Amino acid sequence: MTAIVGEAAIIQQYFAPLAGHYSGAFGLRDDAATITPPPGHDLVVSVDAIAAGVHFFPNDDPSDIGWKALAVNVSDLVAKGAVPHAYVMALALPEPPTAAWMSAFTHGLDQAQRAFAITLVGGDTDRRPGPLSITITAFGFVPTGRMVRRGTACVGDHVFVSGTLGDAALGLRLSPGWDRPPGWRASDAQAASLRARYLRPQPRCALAPVVREWASASMDLSDGLAKDIGRMCAASGVGALLDATGLPLSAAARGIVEAHPDVWSLIATGGDDYEILATTSGHDAERFVAAAAAVGVPVTAIGRICSGHGIIVSGPDGRPLSFDKDGYDHF
Amino acid sequence: MTAIVGEAAIIQQYFAPLAGHYSGAFGLRDDAATITPPPGHDLVVSVDAIAAGVHFFPNDDPSDIGWKALAVNVSDLVAKGAVPHAYVMALALPEPPTAAWMSAFTHGLDQAQRAFAITLVGGDTDRRPGPLSITITAFGFVPTGRMVRRGTACVGDHVFVSGTLGDAALGLRLSPGWDRPPGWRASDAQAASLRARYLRPQPRCALAPVVREWASASMDLSDGLAKDIGRMCAASGVGALLDATGLPLSAAARGIVEAHPDVWSLIATGGDDYEILATTSGHDAERFVAAAAAVGVPVTAIGRICSGHGIIVSGPDGRPLSFDKDGYDHF
Repeated sequence: MTAIVGEAAIIQQYFAPLAGHYSGAFGLRDDAATITPPPGHDLVVSVDAIAAGVHFFPNDDPSDIGWKALAVNVSDLVAKGAVPHAYVMALALPEPPTAAWMSAFTHGLDQAQRAFAITLVGGDTDRRPGPLSITITAFGFVPTGRMVRRGTACVGDHVFVSGTLGDAALGLRLSPGWDRPPGWRASDAQAASLRARYLRPQPRCALAPVVREWASASMDLSDGLAKDIGRMCAASGVGALLDATGLPLSAAARGIVEAHPDVWSLIATGGDDYEILATTSGHDAERFVAAAAAVGVPVTAIGRICSGHGIIVSGPDGRPLSFDKDGYDHF
Repeated sequence: MTAIVGEAAIIQQYFAPLAGHYSGAFGLRDDAATITPPPGHDLVVSVDAIAAGVHFFPNDDPSDIGWKALAVNVSDLVAKGAVPHAYVMALALPEPPTAAWMSAFTHGLDQAQRAFAITLVGGDTDRRPGPLSITITAFGFVPTGRMVRRGTACVGDHVFVSGTLGDAALGLRLSPGWDRPPGWRASDAQAASLRARYLRPQPRCALAPVVREWASASMDLSDGLAKDIGRMCAASGVGALLDATGLPLSAAARGIVEAHPDVWSLIATGGDDYEILATTSGHDAERFVAAAAAVGVPVTAIGRICSGHGIIVSGPDGRPLSFDKDGYDHF
């Protein structure tokens, strides 16, 4: 397990292949990259950092770490209706990495690049104490002025989420090193599928054009439904009324929730879903569902936007759920 | 010294004012920003991170930290001939910051924004163990295809640097907490001016159009002249012959070097100059100098590009200098 010597060696051996033939990346041999948006398009920019011990486990498979670092950024782009295009990456390493670590890390990035049709165009690699961290700034394109905002939801709009919620939060608690909550039933296959949602988030790239066409507001779910819809509603100056029993669950999650109704709270606040939260007008709701189905992404209506402020989530017994905390906050 | 509670409070109280009225920043209330390059222009992208204990001292004035985080990125843009436009910032804090710290930090960013005509458009703030770190991705514009590369220097080209070299490296060694090398004479005013070069790098914004017009290759000097010209030459497939006695020095640096000729090595390898290293054809050399003078930036010819590979720096006695290390490498 020898360490690789030199910043240039790390860049040229491991990262330059990820830049491929993108002309504006200059083989990662320059100080900057160029990006040329197609005429009539805006560049959409999103930045997210992940760090060991906060967003992933230091001993996670490096390929999962690479995948996740890119996936969480792509998720932001597609929730805004943007087509992913390119990214730059700042990598902070506490120690010179081994060749095996770098190979696996860049393999995960490469898998994610292919899955999301996005290319590395530049970066910065340095060594410092503290946790391994990866900061990615990702770029996508939308037709000029067409980025879908989070603050444009209107009273009466329908609230949708893609896929299923809570799987990653459950998967995290079923990870090695965590105490499995007593009584949680999950087969090995179910636990593995839930953990995969935590380790390898699947941004909803196919939904980007559907969001752009039909959503009145949109954002991705990263810090838990309760917190993120709170942000959308605060930005829009509205409230929301949601029905917890209508939240879409995977079979694995349903099995756990049915035995432990208190897990609803975790489903609604757990974070790391990387699904899309979108609103549509009543008029466009059916078209949104049909267009999502046409690109193979299930979406589920989970409530309505209402006037005022505040989010009410009615629980399985019809009474509002209360949450100890409404989602992840770093401070 | 109370800490500020909540990511949203940090963003809205301290960072949103830095986004001002930039329409694509959406008041920092969305998950992404939009940037619209003018027709006929490329977006130039550069990313650089700075971390406490590596690039600055943890107890540095937070306004200096903010300034430096932005300046080092703007320096990359202008060396590429780009006009700075906007940036996104990922901030990793080990503890919730105090209001005083945030005020000073954003004050330094605001000063830098005004000096460099650039605006915050988005970011990511989180808390994690390890050193405070700031990762900025900066954006500028150049006419399509006109970014000035580092790998396009030609045999016979003249080599120029802007300003003076070595000041920041000397200033670092004159900082409180460092043992001042024995015998270094520097008045308090000289020491302060050298330290200012370390704490508040001054990217050469005025030189961007001059570089774009006349330089055959260009990059900024961040890791020391010897290392950075080595990078330029390696990327260009050429060598260089430089004259150490021709390197431009400030009065303060000259005073130290005259008493201690061994300091030449530090001047040539010390890093943190944030000056521009550019080459021009023999034909354009005079025009480059005149155009730089017209925008108020002194530039100095320090040598020539030659065939082959390797950098020879002749010292004050005419013999080649040798360096213990040729510049900063993180690994």
